[in-house]
Amino acid sequence: MKHIERTLIIDAPKFLGQYVRLSGWVNSRRDHGKLIFIDLRDRSGVVQMVIIPDKEIAYKNAKDVRSEFVIDVEGFVKERPGGLAKNTKTGMIEIEVAKIDVISEVEAELPFDVAKSELDVNLNTLLDNRNLVLRNKKINDIFKVYDQLLKSYAEAMRTAHFLEIKTPKILSAATEGGANFFKIKYFNREAYLAQSPQFYKQAGVGAFERVFEIGSVFRAEPHFTTRHVNEYVGLDAEMGFIDSFSDVMDQLESVLKKMAFDISQNCQEELSEYSGEILAPEHFPRIRLTEALEILEKEYGKKSEDVDIDPEGERLICEWAKEKYSSDFIFLTHYPISVRPFYSMPSADGQFTETFDLIFKGVEIASGGQRIHNYKQLKNNIVRYGLNPEDFEHYLDIFKLGMPSHGGWGLGSERIVQKILGLDSIKEAILFPRDVKRLTP
Amino acid sequence: MKHIERTLIIDAPKFLGQYVRLSGWVNSRRDHGKLIFIDLRDRSGVVQMVIIPDKEIAYKNAKDVRSEFVIDVEGFVKERPGGLAKNTKTGMIEIEVAKIDVISEVEAELPFDVAKSELDVNLNTLLDNRNLVLRNKKINDIFKVYDQLLKSYAEAMRTAHFLEIKTPKILSAATEGGANFFKIKYFNREAYLAQSPQFYKQAGVGAFERVFEIGSVFRAEPHFTTRHVNEYVGLDAEMGFIDSFSDVMDQLESVLKKMAFDISQNCQEELSEYSGEILAPEHFPRIRLTEALEILEKEYGKKSEDVDIDPEGERLICEWAKEKYSSDFIFLTHYPISVRPFYSMPSADGQFTETFDLIFKGVEIASGGQRIHNYKQLKNNIVRYGLNPEDFEHYLDIFKLGMPSHGGWGLGSERIVQKILGLDSIKEAILFPRDVKRLTP
Repeated sequence: MKHIERTLIIDAPKFLGQYVRLSGWVNSRRDHGKLIFIDLRDRSGVVQMVIIPDKEIAYKNAKDVRSEFVIDVEGFVKERPGGLAKNTKTGMIEIEVAKIDVISEVEAELPFDVAKSELDVNLNTLLDNRNLVLRNKKINDIFKVYDQLLKSYAEAMRTAHFLEIKTPKILSAATEGGANFFKIKYFNREAYLAQSPQFYKQAGVGAFERVFEIGSVFRAEPHFTTRHVNEYVGLDAEMGFIDSFSDVMDQLESVLKKMAFDISQNCQEELSEYSGEILAPEHFPRIRLTEALEILEKEYGKKSEDVDIDPEGERLICEWAKEKYSSDFIFLTHYPISVRPFYSMPSADGQFTETFDLIFKGVEIASGGQRIHNYKQLKNNIVRYGLNPEDFEHYLDIFKLGMPSHGGWGLGSERIVQKILGLDSIKEAILFPRDVKRLTP
Repeated sequence: MKHIERTLIIDAPKFLGQYVRLSGWVNSRRDHGKLIFIDLRDRSGVVQMVIIPDKEIAYKNAKDVRSEFVIDVEGFVKERPGGLAKNTKTGMIEIEVAKIDVISEVEAELPFDVAKSELDVNLNTLLDNRNLVLRNKKINDIFKVYDQLLKSYAEAMRTAHFLEIKTPKILSAATEGGANFFKIKYFNREAYLAQSPQFYKQAGVGAFERVFEIGSVFRAEPHFTTRHVNEYVGLDAEMGFIDSFSDVMDQLESVLKKMAFDISQNCQEELSEYSGEILAPEHFPRIRLTEALEILEKEYGKKSEDVDIDPEGERLICEWAKEKYSSDFIFLTHYPISVRPFYSMPSADGQFTETFDLIFKGVEIASGGQRIHNYKQLKNNIVRYGLNPEDFEHYLDIFKLGMPSHGGWGLGSERIVQKILGLDSIKEAILFPRDVKRLTP
């Protein structure tokens, strides 16, 4: 038991001349023969400490500690001589150490120095040494942006009177298709992991009109790209009594503008480390997919075989939107029936759907649209898609009870952070990512 | 496309004398020969509408609609004659209908009337007819309390500088034991569903000091009780640089006091429907488990075979705490080593652990304590528990890197709501619960 309360490093300058207790990790240690300097790091910052030989026990301990040791320190907050390192928030002070206790030693060889501002290691090294890597400030900061994103999303949804719900991730049937589901042994039968909360959030509309969910999404897709993982956190929403799917885009646009605003305001340091920026104009451009394909052909000489857009097309159309509308966001609307799920509301022409994708900095971050709310129309559409209505019995039940017109979206949380910060891979935006080969740490 | 914007029912009284558009479900319909009365329900409330024969089309539609039809209505907001139903928030007005559009019909027989204030049906009926049941106001309101709980938890944690993290739910190994894990087929190998974020949140301490997570928890336990389900939402937290596990209890206590305060303030209507109340004193009583067992024997004549407490004991000790401390909460501390996981910090005596359970209204809602942070001690403890350190390689890696003293808790979100509202089963506090037999709807 310690009798002095711990002071966070960021608060230490307030205690100039006073005796404080600090706790944290050894960020670096420099032995200048007589004097030993240790940079101590905690969640709030880094501060220089100086240990003089007169403090015999502290000096001995300071000799022994190495990078990443966890220590508890007591000492006086002094003005830093020579006014060095004024650029950091604690650069005007140093700690004259009276006492050092080692809480934990390091029991492994450290493969690199996490105190460096840029780690400059490859993706596998980043992921294999995750526990160490996450201590690097620049990498650590990714997750401060992620925290802000989660906070902003929930706030934006509540402001618009959406109720937060949690829906089951274990399903009795592999709905919505089938191939992309992970199979579970559930007591003496088989079950599946949810690849979206789609059906349950639609059920939520029947009870609450407006619902949102922040939850795990599992996709058994054998992708090896910079934008896919097999487990991610979806930011879902569904809203009833819409007049058209424009209402859904309006709502999503307002959520993303708030997220962009909050991150710009509250994560300035993190954004500047990554030279991150977000261009979120008052209105995001909205164009039909077919129009986007024409633009790609006309402006970039890129022809499409199908009425669909590929990753390169998404990248180029974002370039176009940025140039023409100063927007990092663009809605592509009216995807053809052939590339959308059976519950998508068909447009009046019968060929396209009342759906959209939201593309952000070259990558699709959200997919959404209006859903069919009429029981008979939905049942017929299941047949039209070559599926069996009996496989969707529980889903269809929702629509027998009187459902309002409705629509919603699924938004990928990690892709947003990846693109805001310009990370090469989505895996860098996930604490412990899961892909086809990686289930550890 | 409608040209008049929708008004929420709760806002209709503000438009007295004006023409409005409302949308919602037919809560009830009374045909008085000449006049037809429909109570319309939306997410904000219920309002009476009157349809007169002069409005021919509206009158015809009003004749056809049945309970739970979704309709879109236009009409004038009038003062309600005779000042009836003043007790509801919209009881001073009624809508004189000019136009009714049917958005969705009901295509099924309704097994009961959801407009009733008390459904009075058994648990299986509640769960089998979930989509309909959730439209009942009293049941619907359970999830407003749940939404408030999620909001308060995140706010309380952020206020205390915890970072929100999301950790993987797919694990390579069935850690922490093994029997209670669901097995997944993960591409060409086996994996497991996380039964807690324990190891990952501890890793989070190494990087961020203080972390919290709101996430799915999966337990393959074949329980058939009123307080167990196989999938639930855990409110987890882990904090570094604690002086003792009292710090963890202090933090959890402050979180629960905020949750209790927010729910008391913002869910008054919901609480009064359920006669729900929460006694959360400034300090929750904290007693050693052994002391609790002595009290049970002395005050209630209940003897224990083991140094552990059973569900009846938890119920009785809460009675005692309520009487003696006017508290619905009580911490039981220092569980014996035999009933706690290998990572629990042993107490100085070597027999007990620096752990606690938090019991609320007769049920354990949280479990927590201080964890071992020293690599060698942890490795030795794994062996002492008869486990193989090689099975915990990735977990042990965390502790090779210098870990602070730390502790945390796992809190079950649905149990709190169950107990606040006095629901018979935890399943009533879950939108679509999963148990051994139930994977639908």
